Amino acid sequence: MFAHRSFSLLCRRSAVTSWRSQSHTAGKRLDISGIYPPIATPFTEPEDVDYQKLDDNIRKYGRLPFRGLVVQGSNGEYPYLTAEERVEVVKRVKQALPKDKLVMAGSGCESTRATIQMSQRMADAGADCVLVVTPCFYRGRMDSRALINHYSKVADSCSVPVVLYSVPANTGLDLPVDAVIQLSKHPNIVGLKDSGGDITRIALMVQKTRSQDFQVLAGSAGFLMAAYAVGAVGGVCALANVLGQQVCELAQLCVSGRWDEAKELQYRLIEPNTAVTRGFGVPALKLAMDWFGYHGGICRSPLQPLSKADLEALRGKFSSNGWL
Amino acid sequence: MFAHRSFSLLCRRSAVTSWRSQSHTAGKRLDISGIYPPIATPFTEPEDVDYQKLDDNIRKYGRLPFRGLVVQGSNGEYPYLTAEERVEVVKRVKQALPKDKLVMAGSGCESTRATIQMSQRMADAGADCVLVVTPCFYRGRMDSRALINHYSKVADSCSVPVVLYSVPANTGLDLPVDAVIQLSKHPNIVGLKDSGGDITRIALMVQKTRSQDFQVLAGSAGFLMAAYAVGAVGGVCALANVLGQQVCELAQLCVSGRWDEAKELQYRLIEPNTAVTRGFGVPALKLAMDWFGYHGGICRSPLQPLSKADLEALRGKFSSNGWL
Amino acid sequence: MFAHRSFSLLCRRSAVTSWRSQSHTAGKRLDISGIYPPIATPFTEPEDVDYQKLDDNIRKYGRLPFRGLVVQGSNGEYPYLTAEERVEVVKRVKQALPKDKLVMAGSGCESTRATIQMSQRMADAGADCVLVVTPCFYRGRMDSRALINHYSKVADSCSVPVVLYSVPANTGLDLPVDAVIQLSKHPNIVGLKDSGGDITRIALMVQKTRSQDFQVLAGSAGFLMAAYAVGAVGGVCALANVLGQQVCELAQLCVSGRWDEAKELQYRLIEPNTAVTRGFGVPALKLAMDWFGYHGGICRSPLQPLSKADLEALRGKFSSNGWL
Amino acid sequence: MFAHRSFSLLCRRSAVTSWRSQSHTAGKRLDISGIYPPIATPFTEPEDVDYQKLDDNIRKYGRLPFRGLVVQGSNGEYPYLTAEERVEVVKRVKQALPKDKLVMAGSGCESTRATIQMSQRMADAGADCVLVVTPCFYRGRMDSRALINHYSKVADSCSVPVVLYSVPANTGLDLPVDAVIQLSKHPNIVGLKDSGGDITRIALMVQKTRSQDFQVLAGSAGFLMAAYAVGAVGGVCALANVLGQQVCELAQLCVSGRWDEAKELQYRLIEPNTAVTRGFGVPALKLAMDWFGYHGGICRSPLQPLSKADLEALRGKFSSNGWL
Repeated sequence: MFAHRSFSLLCRRSAVTSWRSQSHTAGKRLDISGIYPPIATPFTEPEDVDYQKLDDNIRKYGRLPFRGLVVQGSNGEYPYLTAEERVEVVKRVKQALPKDKLVMAGSGCESTRATIQMSQRMADAGADCVLVVTPCFYRGRMDSRALINHYSKVADSCSVPVVLYSVPANTGLDLPVDAVIQLSKHPNIVGLKDSGGDITRIALMVQKTRSQDFQVLAGSAGFLMAAYAVGAVGGVCALANVLGQQVCELAQLCVSGRWDEAKELQYRLIEPNTAVTRGFGVPALKLAMDWFGYHGGICRSPLQPLSKADLEALRGKFSSNGWL
Repeated sequence: MFAHRSFSLLCRRSAVTSWRSQSHTAGKRLDISGIYPPIATPFTEPEDVDYQKLDDNIRKYGRLPFRGLVVQGSNGEYPYLTAEERVEVVKRVKQALPKDKLVMAGSGCESTRATIQMSQRMADAGADCVLVVTPCFYRGRMDSRALINHYSKVADSCSVPVVLYSVPANTGLDLPVDAVIQLSKHPNIVGLKDSGGDITRIALMVQKTRSQDFQVLAGSAGFLMAAYAVGAVGGVCALANVLGQQVCELAQLCVSGRWDEAKELQYRLIEPNTAVTRGFGVPALKLAMDWFGYHGGICRSPLQPLSKADLEALRGKFSSNGWL
Repeated sequence: MFAHRSFSLLCRRSAVTSWRSQSHTAGKRLDISGIYPPIATPFTEPEDVDYQKLDDNIRKYGRLPFRGLVVQGSNGEYPYLTAEERVEVVKRVKQALPKDKLVMAGSGCESTRATIQMSQRMADAGADCVLVVTPCFYRGRMDSRALINHYSKVADSCSVPVVLYSVPANTGLDLPVDAVIQLSKHPNIVGLKDSGGDITRIALMVQKTRSQDFQVLAGSAGFLMAAYAVGAVGGVCALANVLGQQVCELAQLCVSGRWDEAKELQYRLIEPNTAVTRGFGVPALKLAMDWFGYHGGICRSPLQPLSKADLEALRGKFSSNGWL
Repeated sequence: MFAHRSFSLLCRRSAVTSWRSQSHTAGKRLDISGIYPPIATPFTEPEDVDYQKLDDNIRKYGRLPFRGLVVQGSNGEYPYLTAEERVEVVKRVKQALPKDKLVMAGSGCESTRATIQMSQRMADAGADCVLVVTPCFYRGRMDSRALINHYSKVADSCSVPVVLYSVPANTGLDLPVDAVIQLSKHPNIVGLKDSGGDITRIALMVQKTRSQDFQVLAGSAGFLMAAYAVGAVGGVCALANVLGQQVCELAQLCVSGRWDEAKELQYRLIEPNTAVTRGFGVPALKLAMDWFGYHGGICRSPLQPLSKADLEALRGKFSSNGWL
């Protein structure tokens, strides 16, 4: 299919070139601060990617004050897409999105070589940076040594900056703090999306990487305000697919130090956020998107639609907080 | 030993009396906001309680701007004390502590009847309120129904206010949010100590109980600032046994809205805090107390002293943050 | 209350005496092989111990081919009994039980000193051996070093043999295999009750302790046959409180090598066993005891009665396997 | 790349045809009883698949009394292979293996559609049956409903029989017993590989599916004898890559009812087995293969070689049991 060795060489060369030509030597890194919805992938009835509906969603999101979009985070059902679909979705998003918004593309695979390849394909398809989830199948062997090795090789080879991604609810693995500290020194690793939500850990990582201009993003709207309070600079929030304006407003209140107002808004976002993430998952996120004027729709199998009882519970979490 | 039935009647009557005579009808509850060290229990070489050293510690703590002391939280090795010792320690603390400080006494036992009895003994010994840990041995059966029943009976019977206590690291059980919300309506339950550290959960509990004048305390210095940011009103912090002044200062910065200064101080407390709690446990807390002028000393068996390597690691967490 | 030091001295002396006078020097240990029901504790309506009903149950159990009874395993609600009740129950059981049956009494407490004291009280009350659960509240610190220290001290001091007890579902802690191997060499530690059910671990412990005449008991009827197959010599089975004859028959089939018949009987015991243990817990065990002619009745609070739906499910697990 | 819809139709038709023409109507299913090594995938230094070394291994395995080989179980590093590599490896194995041995090919992917496609590609490449791991990324949503739906669709579409595969250590998900029971009724699902090792669960699944001619395979040599004792009919054992003759001998002893001899052999296999699985993982398995005359070699990154200390520990587990 492709020659790994020559690809790898190619990849490394372009990466080296990019480091020299841009940002990193000067110590300035890509600014990723701000809010991102990790967009969902709409499907047609036979479960093919619905690029038209995707396009519609992107144009709507383009009008909101997002810093950019995360394409193929966990909410994008990326494990259910083929490599070709993953790349094609990134291309379409890039085309439909205003130029001042970032495309952060999920490129993580289980093996290092596949992650290297996918990261570069994402970059070539227009991604401004790549989001690389921890490999996890052999989680018993994924210690700091293995993960530092993995991410270093990926970052060495990639022509766009790398963002680390720790999402223990899905991977059963928390990227160790000492690995994050070590990796923050890599010139091509610019930040971390932390979806675990352990606020003590988030604060510690901010403290320990602050000399590196390393940027920590909250991986959920549920602890967005607390994350800002301890030094995070943004968030990748599933809920922003539904209540994008409100999540951006919460971020703005935090950035401008209006903490009391922030707190009030944060409260009202917790239950809807939990409902579309841990509570009922991607099927719930897509259902809520339908309610709020976006294209959500079905998930790929084996993800199943919500039961009627769960649907009612989901609705209740939005209505009781004044959003429906 | 004692007649449960008559005791129980007695208990209930005094509780009813107290509700009528004080606080609860007027909707005003005991103000528990502020910082508490959950004090350690010093032992002599043969592992008897060293009341003299305890007394020394209390007098030193009495000069710090604490709201009070928690006696027999997890750091007090309460599961290793006899019922008599538990009560006696509370008595001694009450005697040695300035009158404006609260004594919050851990009175949780596995059975409801033992918890009722111990809570009242604590109240009789001078406790201003009792801290009741979730029973946990049969954790598979400790659902909201069982826990609401347990805490309601304890609070019904007790002549001083009850504070709920959720510490999943030790109990393997997180007091469910719906149970907390339900229990917050009880006139004799005034708050919760949450040691789990899930900041989303903490914010949600504050939101959902705010109409009840219910007070949430952070159970650790590691997430104290974040907890204040989302509406907690204080903390029970193991680290306050060692760096009491600093933890109080952090709380004061939060209360007065000086969040940037708070953040800087918070950072420097995370590693020492983790080291004396999850990291190396009560033996480490007591060792650090020795370093900072308090009586720490040995733990009761089966808790073992730190290994030399752990001791060095512990010291490093204090010195690298500028405390040693 | 009592002088620990002199008690401890006393304890040690009697233990030494017993080692000299009996079993251990000769390399012969107390034979604990066979089946034990871990008996439940009946209560009156106000939740006091119902000694009359206890007595009735014991007399019935006395007629079955049990090796003995476990008094105050997890199913005896021992964490809900006072020290006095724990001892009194052992006394009553000893009196009511035929002399050829063993009384194995649960004497575990959190602290080493309390466990030493309780073990000796149990021995004095007539226990033939004591069953000592792993201390677990500070489970993060309960490594092999701490546990070997704990059990060694208890076994040194106790005038009757000690049986180790690992029950991770309740304690969140599995007694490490290396600790078991080390402790199997102690002359006063004769065996282990393993309720975790990891059959690989059970086989490994049998293999590694076989030179010590160390006896492994399965902690549940669910894996009793498999445990016998890999070298266990008996079982402490909650289900034996209800289907005692059948559990003994299963053991007999295993001992006599009639594995095919054993398998058929084993199958029919799995679902009822799971239902009265992990499935619905002690309240279900007591309910099933009522169905089969024993006194079960209520549990102490906070344990709650089964819901009607759970009761029906419980009944189904017995009836679908031909027991009701 | 390919048209899902027409592919799917094709797939279904061939499956239907196969059911009619062979086994299932007559109630006779493919006999999968016996021992399988889940073969490792050898790599060259630049981490390409080394088909020559693979071929060498297969020819050696072909001389042992295995029922067949599992290609791309967890030990085959299948998550690190491309789809093309996965299929090619199956082809090569089929060519090199004697005709009387089965090729059981791991075809699980996260999405149902990808699993359907991969299963058929495996069948077309010569697989005699496919082994389908539980999808797990969205494990919070992978309830019985979702999993029954997933497996039913896969089995409906596949021209060779399907074997279910539950491996919670890697997936964080145990295929629920009720789902297994339901799926055992599908004419094209012939068995289950259970790597969780809960012997009670294994016995229960055998009992509940026995009317369906459903075959349960132990997923590890650690509990192989116990699994046979409760009714399993074989095993897929990583250790069989190294000590193939011995694992087959253990199986033979079990099948012929020589349980005492089986027990002695089982003991000696536990520690080596744990070392090459949970203990040190695939890198250890490959290292041990080198010691025993097979081609093991390196793993794909991010899997790292063993440290020197781990290597020595691994060697000790073989030598102390008399294998080195």
